[in-house]
Order: sequence, then structure tokens, then C-alpha cells
Amino acid sequence: MTDICSLIDAARGNIKSDLVIKNIKIINVFSQEIEMGDIAIHKGKIVGIGEYDGEEEINGTGMYASPGLIDSHVHVESSMTTPPYFTRELFKKGITTVIADPHEIANVMGSEGIKFMINQLEQCVIDIYYMLPSCVPATPFEDSGALLMANDLREFRSHKNILGLGEVMDVPSVLSCKEDMIKKLKDFEEYIIDGHAPLLSGQDLNAYVVAGVKTDHECSNVEEALEKIKRGVYILIREGSAAKNLEELIPAVTALNFDRFLFCTDDKHADDIILEGSIDNLVRKAIALGLDPVMALTIASLNAAKAYNLNSVGAIAPGYKADLLLFNDINKLNVEYVIKNGSIGHIKDQKVNSFINMKKTNIYNNSMNIESISTEQLNVKAEGSTVNVIDVTQGSLITKHLTCSFKEKNGFVEKVYSPDVLKIAIFERHKRTCNYFVGYIKGLGIKNCAIAQTIAHDSHNIVVVGEKEEDMAIAVNTLIKVGGGIVITEEGNVVGTLELPIGGLMKESPVEEVAAELKLLRTILKKFNNKEDNDIFLTLSFMSLPVIPYIKITSRGLFNYNKFEFMNLFNE
Amino acid sequence: MTDICSLIDAARGNIKSDLVIKNIKIINVFSQEIEMGDIAIHKGKIVGIGEYDGEEEINGTGMYASPGLIDSHVHVESSMTTPPYFTRELFKKGITTVIADPHEIANVMGSEGIKFMINQLEQCVIDIYYMLPSCVPATPFEDSGALLMANDLREFRSHKNILGLGEVMDVPSVLSCKEDMIKKLKDFEEYIIDGHAPLLSGQDLNAYVVAGVKTDHECSNVEEALEKIKRGVYILIREGSAAKNLEELIPAVTALNFDRFLFCTDDKHADDIILEGSIDNLVRKAIALGLDPVMALTIASLNAAKAYNLNSVGAIAPGYKADLLLFNDINKLNVEYVIKNGSIGHIKDQKVNSFINMKKTNIYNNSMNIESISTEQLNVKAEGSTVNVIDVTQGSLITKHLTCSFKEKNGFVEKVYSPDVLKIAIFERHKRTCNYFVGYIKGLGIKNCAIAQTIAHDSHNIVVVGEKEEDMAIAVNTLIKVGGGIVITEEGNVVGTLELPIGGLMKESPVEEVAAELKLLRTILKKFNNKEDNDIFLTLSFMSLPVIPYIKITSRGLFNYNKFEFMNLFNE
Repeated sequence: MTDICSLIDAARGNIKSDLVIKNIKIINVFSQEIEMGDIAIHKGKIVGIGEYDGEEEINGTGMYASPGLIDSHVHVESSMTTPPYFTRELFKKGITTVIADPHEIANVMGSEGIKFMINQLEQCVIDIYYMLPSCVPATPFEDSGALLMANDLREFRSHKNILGLGEVMDVPSVLSCKEDMIKKLKDFEEYIIDGHAPLLSGQDLNAYVVAGVKTDHECSNVEEALEKIKRGVYILIREGSAAKNLEELIPAVTALNFDRFLFCTDDKHADDIILEGSIDNLVRKAIALGLDPVMALTIASLNAAKAYNLNSVGAIAPGYKADLLLFNDINKLNVEYVIKNGSIGHIKDQKVNSFINMKKTNIYNNSMNIESISTEQLNVKAEGSTVNVIDVTQGSLITKHLTCSFKEKNGFVEKVYSPDVLKIAIFERHKRTCNYFVGYIKGLGIKNCAIAQTIAHDSHNIVVVGEKEEDMAIAVNTLIKVGGGIVITEEGNVVGTLELPIGGLMKESPVEEVAAELKLLRTILKKFNNKEDNDIFLTLSFMSLPVIPYIKITSRGLFNYNKFEFMNLFNE
Repeated sequence: MTDICSLIDAARGNIKSDLVIKNIKIINVFSQEIEMGDIAIHKGKIVGIGEYDGEEEINGTGMYASPGLIDSHVHVESSMTTPPYFTRELFKKGITTVIADPHEIANVMGSEGIKFMINQLEQCVIDIYYMLPSCVPATPFEDSGALLMANDLREFRSHKNILGLGEVMDVPSVLSCKEDMIKKLKDFEEYIIDGHAPLLSGQDLNAYVVAGVKTDHECSNVEEALEKIKRGVYILIREGSAAKNLEELIPAVTALNFDRFLFCTDDKHADDIILEGSIDNLVRKAIALGLDPVMALTIASLNAAKAYNLNSVGAIAPGYKADLLLFNDINKLNVEYVIKNGSIGHIKDQKVNSFINMKKTNIYNNSMNIESISTEQLNVKAEGSTVNVIDVTQGSLITKHLTCSFKEKNGFVEKVYSPDVLKIAIFERHKRTCNYFVGYIKGLGIKNCAIAQTIAHDSHNIVVVGEKEEDMAIAVNTLIKVGGGIVITEEGNVVGTLELPIGGLMKESPVEEVAAELKLLRTILKKFNNKEDNDIFLTLSFMSLPVIPYIKITSRGLFNYNKFEFMNLFNE
């Protein structure tokens, strides 16, 4: 009871507020105006706008105050850091709330992975809410580390940081009413259910929405976004490391429909977070593309809060959590201060983000459940007359299908007759099934080296590419030894390593450090890479995801997306 | 599980939908457009927009379809009918959801009154959700039938039709942190809390909002509405029998802020509902005042649904409840069909609103806990030199203060020296306290008769006015005998009666019949009334509400709003 009373007293000016930001330009997400005034903050909450005195005061003259930004859909794992480190970097950018789907770690560790991510929350400096992974594995054609059924998810529902069911990528299972999928949808019908349905339209879209899906972050054109909006779906405009839809979608946003849009990053690597930022990057870009700044900041705050029923954040108004960012230039969003629950972080002075006293986790090195491999395993037995090759499309996750002739030697393929073709292999690493499959990939643009990594959506087995079997085997075996991450080998030597000991996906280091390590790997790789702006690690990480067209590879074989089934490596 | 599956199958066109409205102009509240298409409805839900075939079909050619309308704040009791009858009339107007505050009956019957209103829900043809009365009685200066403390409300919280705490009218108790008020606010901090704060502004508004209040339906000017919007308050634009704010507030609504507005009626009498309608009336008027029709219909549907977390209503989109109205003229909203949970009501053909099998209630005649009064009780002992008189302002609930000299006879006031002055008295009728008070009122414009009624906000004691004490006493005693309502007497005879046996506020009759009875009373009253358009019953019903300026009367004395305390009837 004293709680409310002291807030009331502070709001009325009967007592001094803990903190007052004096004379600042306030982004009012309700009236879509910029309002001058003081912001009074008491006991972590905004208590008033007007004229106030505070125990502590910030002179806001010349600055703007915006509600803290919200990333409405992100996989923290893609930053390669754990939630506590991830949130420390996002805090600096003015992101104060994140809605995350831990489906990467869940594919490796199942429920234990989700529990790990939940346990990490107490060390986070911004609020993370989770959506429970709905599709682990993404398809039945993969060897994931876990299978999450409706019953597995149910136990997490009541946790206060769980908002609902994560992106329902398996659209065919919804449309064909697969039993366990329907169970999951039913279990979460009173919650938010996130969608993932690129280009879904017409009656199938109606069916997908009637099943309970409320959001979509896969729109790639205006028409698609507008159709989904008409059907009541919130559109999460995405700008991540790989998928970038902002420029394409901004023309869809109008004064009359902007409340149906949100911003998200989905997957963003450590180095891109450092370089570009997160949701702040979307706001800047949107403004540069002509969107009204107040509207852009509203999309980045209140809209996400409303769509996910986070009623206490997203606005600078009495009763809201004191989550704000202060900046000088509304086009640049150059953050001066970030205030979280009423506590000040002075970004310019770096008075934030103490990593002191952070508890380390104890789940290292247990995700590489695989024995060392031999060079011989990478030999491919020759059959038929031509071989099917994955043809990489530059700057896209979509691949094409190529057929090549090859040279045989002693019953094995010695050489594929096409330039820039490498071997690619996937090794199952979760359950010692010894499943693996070796194929061919064209267009990565690297030579004289091998790369192995445990980031391989969504099952995150080991993906390895290279020219020489020996380099490939060393890369894989080194990766197994270090507990996952990325390894580059050249002529029998390891020339680069990024260790990601937590599930082979994350490490407990500041985002900046991981970004520096990644940068080093990229520098090393330049020697072997003849293409500019070619993010090989990213491209590799999507070669084993069967839900993306057209030819992919899993530990069980070569996959044909169009037929949605495995295909032979060779043709008669 | 079959549920979702059959909806998915219908949405995909694999099976015929139960009902399809073919080729209709659809009000799309998400895109703010009018969209052509078929609406497919299955198992009470909208499953798709597009091209569909139905087991039953309505030819929508030339018609519009809007989401069912929502009254965001209403006291059902003001219709003088019980919820089942009230909903049958509103259904015809296209209102399919109502958010009601049963504080009239709660002032008479306390928790029993709330239970009664909840029990009535099963016989309602549209959805009613309740906000729990927060201020019973409205002030401590009244003799209400009940006192509702925080503990009394708590038991109702978990009922699925309870959305939160009803209008917090007692603003001073909030601002001064009165213990039980703070308890109520705390109990409902995870729910919606409705406000009622005319002209509250600045720091006091901040404090009121920080206490948890989310809505306000008392705005009477644009500036007030815009300030409240900036502080995060939803503005319920009201157009009832007494208070009409639509015309004043419409200029506040813009493309950028319209999602912060809702429509409500608050208090609307049976005859006004028949004559004008309900929320449909607000939509029509708003359009006539220049508001975009799609925006007006969005305010009347989706906005209310969102503000009150009613996630399954308010839009024509997959997964939403099939609550819609079909009409030919978007300016007139002449309803042809109303569809509720997928069931069709053909309004023009009157194929609706069966009153058959409606269970009668058993709480009649128990609300008049008062003995017959005597004529002598209405005599006023003379004191001092002048008497304080309530001066009615035509067409307003606000009264003025008038001081008049008087003629004394045998120690009693025989005559007040001013034209058009009547006696007014309030008799407590809930708990046999024998509390009553007699004063004077000027400006009602009636003579040669007496009127007594049990509709007297908010405590609903007996209010009686008249020229002759005998007529007044007969009116009061007749009212007691019939169990409440309205009684008119003339020269010792009862000349008009409207019985409202449920709490002295409602009866179990169709709204149309109550409207006809009211009309008859008004016709009778014309003989005694020299003013046109003067709703005496309405004016009388607000003479005992101390929270409205400036001079009011309760069963305990004459009340001065400015000083917020009782005043003497006489002056020295």
C-alpha cells in the first residue's frame, strides 16, 4: 500500500521524486507529439510529466526522451553471447525490453536449454521475455538435440517471463492439423502465438491465423504485409544480420495502420550489433527512409508493448516503468543516457554494464556428443554419372540446384567438374547417432582452407566445408575438442578459432569481445576468400535448414525443398 | 482439438462453413479500409475473408459489414430494465458487447446486487462484462443501501465476466490515499481500472493515473481530452440521456490518436434507447460531425476491445468471434442483420429477441425498507431569516445556490418568496434509519402535482418534489407500496405510476414497454409542466448526488459541493 501512496505523493509534488529529468523534449507515443516538460521518476516508475523537483536531477535541455526500445523478436543465441552479456550491450543502445525465442539452444539442449535461458534472466540488465519454441526440430528431416512436444512446453507456461508460443515455422503441420502442433496451439490460445509464414496468403493465411497466430516477421514485400494486416496479424519489420526487410516494408506504414507494425532483429551477430546497433538501427533507418521519427519510436516501443500485453512499458506516462533513452539528435539516436527501472546509465561516460560479480554457468562442454571423425569419412563413394550440388546464391539464404559431372578414382569421387566447388558435410553431434552426410557446394568463394562450425540452423549439428578432407577432419575434430564454435584450418593447421562452449552457440563474454574475435576470423578468412562482403559463417549456418529453398543438406542427406523430401546425391 | 481443426478446414475451404456472407463491403478496422469479399463463419467464429461457400448464405450485395459495436461504459440500470431485456434491445441496434458497471443496484443492494447482475448474464443475448463498483456509496454523506469495501469486491475478481474496477469517482480519496481506496486500487492493479475525473488536470491527473486508472468518460472539452490522452488515459466519448459530450470532443480525434478513443453511453433511459439507439447513435452522430465512417466504427468496436483486453472481439478477421452487423447505408447504420456468435438475427423481419422461457427473478419488493410517511414530516420548521434553495439549471445536472426570504406560520415555513419554488425531500429507504431531509428547489417548472421516485443517484433513496405536502406524502407512500419506481400525484390522487420493483430501479419488461410507460408518464406530466424538453425524472435523479456541483440534498441535509460538506437550510 505504501507503494501506490508514495507514487501518488510524488506525482502530486508532495514529496520530491527520486529522479527528475528537467526540461526535455518528450516523445509522446499516445498523442504522437513532442512535448516539453520534466519527467518525474520515483521508485522505478514514471510518476508525472510537468514541473517537478527531484532528489537527483538530469538537465535535459536540448535532449529528447523516448520510451525504452523493444525488440519484439530475437534469438539471443545469434549474438553468440549469453543473455546477461547480450543485455549489457543492448542496454547501451537504448533497448530495455526484448522478446526472445530460445529455439537455437532448445534445438541443442531441449527443455534444459530453455531452463538455462530462464535462469540467466536474473543476471540480465534489461527485461527479457521468452516465447516458447514451437518447432524443435524445425522439420522431421533433421537430427536435432531435442524434440519438444506440447507436453514439454506446458510446464513453462506459467513462468512470469513466458509470453506465449514462439514462431510457428512449421506451417504445413498447422494447415494439415498435425496432432501435437494443434495441442501446442490449443495450450497457448490464451497467450500470444508468434508466426513465421513467408508469403503465406489467401485461404491458407486465413487458416493459419484462425489457428491463433498473432504476429509475423517474415514479410518481404508491401502487398504481403498489407494482406496480413487486414487479417489482424501484427507485422514485425525485421532487420537482422541476414534478413533485411525494412526498406522494402516501410512504404506499407501509414498514419492509419502504423499501430499494427513492430520492429525486430530476429538474428543479429555480435559484430553487427556493435557496428549497427539493434532496434535503434531500425529506428534510424526508418527515419532516414522518411518515416516520422515519433511514429518510428512508437513502433519501436508502445506497439510492441501492446501487441505482447506488456502493459507497464512502452510509454513515458504516469505509472509506466521508468525505461527511457535520452539522446540529442532524433535522426541519429545517439544515446546519452539510458534509464532502466529508474536507474541511470550514462552511456557516453561508460558508467554502465559492470560485469563484476557475474556468475558463470556450469553447462560448458557437454554439447559435443560425438567421437572424433576420420579423414576417410569425408570420402564420397561415386555412383551414377552426375552429382547434385548446392549452388549458393550470393547475399541470400536461398540456394539453387546444380548438376555436375565428376571424376572417379578407386570408386570415390575425386573431382567435381565445375569451378568453386567444395565438399560440405553435416555431422550429427547431439546423440552419438554417428549420422553424417557428405555433399558438394558451389559458390562460397573460398579455397585452400576448411571451416567447421556448430552454428547450423536449426539443429546446430556440425557443418564443415573445405577442399581437402584432412583439413576438414582437423577442423571438425578441433571443434569437438573446444566444445563448439567456429574453426578454420589450412594445410593441416588450425589458423582460427572462436570457441562457443555453451551449446556450441554462445560464450560468456561481452558482445564486444566476441565481435573482436569474429572480426579476427574474418580477417584470417580474407586470405582464402575471393569475394567481398561474403559472410561465409552466416551462409554456412543456413545450409542445413530444410525450411529454406531449394537444396539443403542435413546429417541424413541432401534435401529438396520443393518436394520437401530427401534426394539422391547422384543421378543415373 | 477438433475445434481448431474444423476452423482450419473451413478457413482453407476444405469443408463448407456454417454461414457465408457473400460479396459484402467489409469494414476493416486494421487497415482502415472497406474491403470487398465473402465472410466465412464457422462454429461461431469468423474463419476467413475471401471467396467461400456456406451451408447457409446471406447475399451481402450492396451491404456493409461492421464488427459488432461495443458500449465501453454503461449502467444497465439506467435503462430501467434488467440485463436480459436490455441486451435484447441493444442487439437490434448492432451492439454485441457491453462493459457495464452495476453501481446503481450495488448502492441499493450491495454485493447481492452485483450477484444478481452476474446471475442475469446467462439470459443475455449479447456479452456483458462488468466493472466492479469502486465507490459505493459515492460519498460518505449519503445513506446508501450498502457500503462496498475492498474485501467485498475481492470475491468477484476471478469471475470471467469481471474485467476490473469500475469508475473511481471518489478522486479525493485517491489523491489523499484513503486506506480502503488504495486497497481496491492495489487489488485491481493487474486489471482495468475505470476513471471518472471531470476536469482533473496537471499533477493531480498524474497522481490519479499513477494510481492505476486507465480510462475516463467525463471529458467535456478537447483540451481536457488531449491532456488525458498524453498521460495514457483512454478517452470514452459519452453520449447518454443526460451527459452528451460527442459534439464537443470529436474535434480532438485525429488519424494519429483515434486509437485512444472509445464510445460509451453511461446512462441511457429506455425511451432514449428506443428513440436514438445506443453506440449506433454515437457512430451516426460522429459521422455526421465529419468523422471518417471506418474510423468511427473502429472506435466503436476494436478500440474498446483492445482497451479492455477483449481479444476475441472487435474485428472481422480470422479467429474473431462472429459478432457483426450488416447495414445498407454507412451514414445511417440502418441495421438489416445482426450476427452474434455466428447466429443470425434479421432485424427488419423482427426474427429476433424471443422473450420466451425467460426466467423471472425472485428479488422483487425487498428494497423499500421504510415505513409509510406522514404529511407532517414534510413540514419545515422555520429558523433564521432566509432559506437556501437549490436552483436548477435548465439542461444541466449542475445546480446553483439561491437565498430566498420566506413567510412563517406557527413556527413553520408557509411560503418561500420566489416563483417556481417547490419542496424537495429525500427519504432514506434502505435500512429503516428514518433519516430524511426536506428542502427547497426552484426551476423545475411544474406545479399542482407531486413526483416521487426511487431513481436518485447514487444511493437511490426516495426523492420527492411537490407543492402540497399531502400530494408528496401520497406519492412517497404509493412508491413504497409498489416497491419503487416513479409516482405522480395530483390533488390527493395517484395519476401516474411506473413500477420498478427490482431495487426500485429496474423491471423485467422489454425496453420498448418501459419506454411506452415512461412516455405515458411524460404525457401526464405535460399538464403540470410549463417547460419544453425538460426531463424532470432525470433532473430529479441527480439532485441527491453530492459529487456534482453545487447545491444538492441527501437524506442527511443540504450539501454544499464547493465546501464538500453539509450546509444549514436557513441563514441567520
